[in-house]
Amino acid sequence: MSMKWISALLLLQLCCCFSFGSSGKVLVWPMEYSHWMNMKIIVEELIQRGHDVTVLIPSSFIFLDVNASSAIKFETFTASISRQQLEDFYMQFITKWMNVGSIHTCLEYSPVMQDTFREYSGVWENVCKEAVSNKKLMTKLQASKFDVLLADPAAPCGELVAELLKLPFVYSLRFSPGFHVEKAAAGLLFPPSYVPVIMSCLSGQMTFMERVKNMICMIYFDFWLETFNKKNWNKLYSETLGKPTTLYEKMKQADMWLIRSYWDLEFPRPTLPNVDFVGGLHCKPARPLPKEMENFVQSSGEHGVVVFSLGSMVSNMTEERANVIASALAQIPQKVLWRFDGKKPDTLGPNTRLFKWLPQNDLLGHPKTRAFITHGGANSVYEAIYHGIPMVGIPLFGEQHDNIAQMEAKGAAVKLEFKSLSSIDLLNALKTVIDNPFYKSNAMKLSTIHHDQLMKPLDRAVFWIEFVMRHRGAKHLRPLAQNLTWYQYHSLDVIGFLLALVAAISFLVIKCCLICYQNFVKTEKKKKRE
Amino acid sequence: MSMKWISALLLLQLCCCFSFGSSGKVLVWPMEYSHWMNMKIIVEELIQRGHDVTVLIPSSFIFLDVNASSAIKFETFTASISRQQLEDFYMQFITKWMNVGSIHTCLEYSPVMQDTFREYSGVWENVCKEAVSNKKLMTKLQASKFDVLLADPAAPCGELVAELLKLPFVYSLRFSPGFHVEKAAAGLLFPPSYVPVIMSCLSGQMTFMERVKNMICMIYFDFWLETFNKKNWNKLYSETLGKPTTLYEKMKQADMWLIRSYWDLEFPRPTLPNVDFVGGLHCKPARPLPKEMENFVQSSGEHGVVVFSLGSMVSNMTEERANVIASALAQIPQKVLWRFDGKKPDTLGPNTRLFKWLPQNDLLGHPKTRAFITHGGANSVYEAIYHGIPMVGIPLFGEQHDNIAQMEAKGAAVKLEFKSLSSIDLLNALKTVIDNPFYKSNAMKLSTIHHDQLMKPLDRAVFWIEFVMRHRGAKHLRPLAQNLTWYQYHSLDVIGFLLALVAAISFLVIKCCLICYQNFVKTEKKKKRE
Repeated sequence: MSMKWISALLLLQLCCCFSFGSSGKVLVWPMEYSHWMNMKIIVEELIQRGHDVTVLIPSSFIFLDVNASSAIKFETFTASISRQQLEDFYMQFITKWMNVGSIHTCLEYSPVMQDTFREYSGVWENVCKEAVSNKKLMTKLQASKFDVLLADPAAPCGELVAELLKLPFVYSLRFSPGFHVEKAAAGLLFPPSYVPVIMSCLSGQMTFMERVKNMICMIYFDFWLETFNKKNWNKLYSETLGKPTTLYEKMKQADMWLIRSYWDLEFPRPTLPNVDFVGGLHCKPARPLPKEMENFVQSSGEHGVVVFSLGSMVSNMTEERANVIASALAQIPQKVLWRFDGKKPDTLGPNTRLFKWLPQNDLLGHPKTRAFITHGGANSVYEAIYHGIPMVGIPLFGEQHDNIAQMEAKGAAVKLEFKSLSSIDLLNALKTVIDNPFYKSNAMKLSTIHHDQLMKPLDRAVFWIEFVMRHRGAKHLRPLAQNLTWYQYHSLDVIGFLLALVAAISFLVIKCCLICYQNFVKTEKKKKRE
Repeated sequence: MSMKWISALLLLQLCCCFSFGSSGKVLVWPMEYSHWMNMKIIVEELIQRGHDVTVLIPSSFIFLDVNASSAIKFETFTASISRQQLEDFYMQFITKWMNVGSIHTCLEYSPVMQDTFREYSGVWENVCKEAVSNKKLMTKLQASKFDVLLADPAAPCGELVAELLKLPFVYSLRFSPGFHVEKAAAGLLFPPSYVPVIMSCLSGQMTFMERVKNMICMIYFDFWLETFNKKNWNKLYSETLGKPTTLYEKMKQADMWLIRSYWDLEFPRPTLPNVDFVGGLHCKPARPLPKEMENFVQSSGEHGVVVFSLGSMVSNMTEERANVIASALAQIPQKVLWRFDGKKPDTLGPNTRLFKWLPQNDLLGHPKTRAFITHGGANSVYEAIYHGIPMVGIPLFGEQHDNIAQMEAKGAAVKLEFKSLSSIDLLNALKTVIDNPFYKSNAMKLSTIHHDQLMKPLDRAVFWIEFVMRHRGAKHLRPLAQNLTWYQYHSLDVIGFLLALVAAISFLVIKCCLICYQNFVKTEKKKKRE
């Protein structure tokens, strides 16, 4: 074959890797609430860069005003669960979790959680079944010829849709309980001696007893999640694809894992080339506040303001808790903006104003803001890190305890327990983070680290999605470990072989020595007899 | 304290992190040959960006034309070893290694290497001693108030100089034998089931027997290097600093590890946040060739040219080897440019031209270049990857066997053994990589991957050096594992404690059961007797 032909062939081959022009077609399999709030930022950035994005949602999808986001295309499929049922389910899920109260180890709250997680898994399994068995939907998606799928593995099914549509896919993930998915599917390593298992509520340099707790949590999560609802999912995936497979086998096919964290929030731990840490990708410089709010903030004078929100899922609480909190807030010299949708507490001070919704990022970026009372959701903590605001953390559920534990270990937050905190506790915590420059200084250090990265987290997230589109995957970043069985991965076969070899050689040597010795002794004895 | 005072204090505190303006002062502790050729690119880029760079070298430093690099400042200190002695030592080092011949496992060549490495370590230990005990030099360096030190850990001492000058430091490293330093000092993880130990000559997906070999190599290197010359270095470091310390303890203080590799060359493996992979940072687009060379290249017509070089340390070989090679080259339709400084081989064909020096990068980037015959040094392999040129690898020493094994596993190279290759072998290998589009296609894929990164490797290397200058370190990226002892790191104390706990509980339960049983049996017996 002449060189010209070879060159032409190669060009053709390489062109296939770049079949789409500057704009690609992205399909999104999202999760609800804060997960979607974060993913929406990526989706909007992709649209901004000229990509065509379709978000695949069940008819029960809650956290979405379809009409409001006009630039995003939504592809809705019918789900048997109603929006109200789903909302009730989530509220029940959170209430149960919050009611566990003071949490010291994973063992205290996890038994309560196991049932709730099983229920959650069942809900999503049904939604998944309804999506992939919807022939009209799948045919339409197939015809749309997407280039990549962006999925949240907290709501499994994205990887199944990707397989059915023969698409490479990228994950966006904050965490899975006990980092189990990150271990089992992404192959990440979490040495329990210095990496606290998520949902263990531990952080930073652990004492001996904390390392014991961490080891117990690791064993607990591994044991629990190894058996957790796997059968159902594996059955669904195998039946849908018409060949025996598992949920994790499909998850392993992810081309890139975008983890919504970074070393400003977490302490450094081992990673892999197909994992990038894009925590805080949703953060933006503050925009001006609504006029009335700005006037209220400015009225705080040199004392400044405190921002208080418990996140997108919790805007209410019991009267008793609200009064305890309001009475503490009434005693500080700062003005307070509180996101609260319940009955106005009797103890509410004149310095505190209630809002049904807060422009949280804009408030945290306001020069008057002195502290942030937060539930510790990753999105909120990142907005505080971005703007360098010290926190009073009142974690409620999920990995919020861990996020606040990390911030506490880094000296940027004080942690309180929602169920047991008194007015004095909250008052003292606020005074501490506002008046002690240690907290502001650490919050500013984290902010500096966050802003001083090779590339902005959102740009990195988009880069990797575009990379996967350009190359139809990112196979060169996938560890070869994925081709090994668990015993090969842990080198158990090799260790067994080497031990057997050593044993065999030792046996032969001893046997030879014995034979020699016996022969020698016999000869000697014979000689003596003669 | 009023808020104004707190703000002022914070500003002052934060300003300390950014004490230097846009330009900083960099001290460099380099290694010889290809190490320096690579580091020089970083140094030149730092100068380009306005930094003030001083390279600290012993008077014996070989691979440096001090006058030629006018922009770089050199600080020379007297070393007792002469340049000639050092050059002879390196040549002997390489000759010994090359003479081991066909290499199949680390165990074959390492015994030969152990003595040579001990000698090498002794040479650098002396150089180090002469640097740090040179009071005039150290006072001058102290007075220069550097912001950061850039060191090559293949030549230890940089970390000691950094400690004496109280500087944060960044490492530039390709590898240490068996990845021992990367494991012991950087804390990187190398699971032997899918990460071939460097200098094991293995790559990619390993068979069972290859995994056995890899495990043996890992044990061998760990065992050898755990004892290797450590005492001398630890003694030197402890005496110099006036407190008991070790070489690895000081190495662990590195703020950033810039590894001269990436996932185009290596297969993905676990990494850490304070490690970045900047392989190929020296690669540049090709510049025009000298006129005469360009004419020769153009005269090759549609067949193109083959570039042949065995690297910066080897420009000669025995007459017999030269004739075998020349006779193969004479039989290909391509023209050949051969970097060779020996007697002209008798079998040299009219298509082959000998050069004492080659503009390798410019040649590899020339559109007429069809293949590259290389020793497989990382710098050379990266130039081939950058320009997408398939290779015939003739590895000689160091990690060249591993580099070529990686390229072979990725389908971009054919490997030959220098000592045993025949003319037919070389001819066939050249025909294969030139005529079979598989090799060119894979080389182009690697090139595409190399060019499609978040940020260029050189920009990343410079970013991290500047980051360390800006923040006087990068402590937030350093794993907390470094504060643990080896048994804590491996959770042996925790496992021991938990096992003891389980044993104690089991013992108590069994004891209680026994007591109950005995009491019950006795009571029953008594009852029966009565």
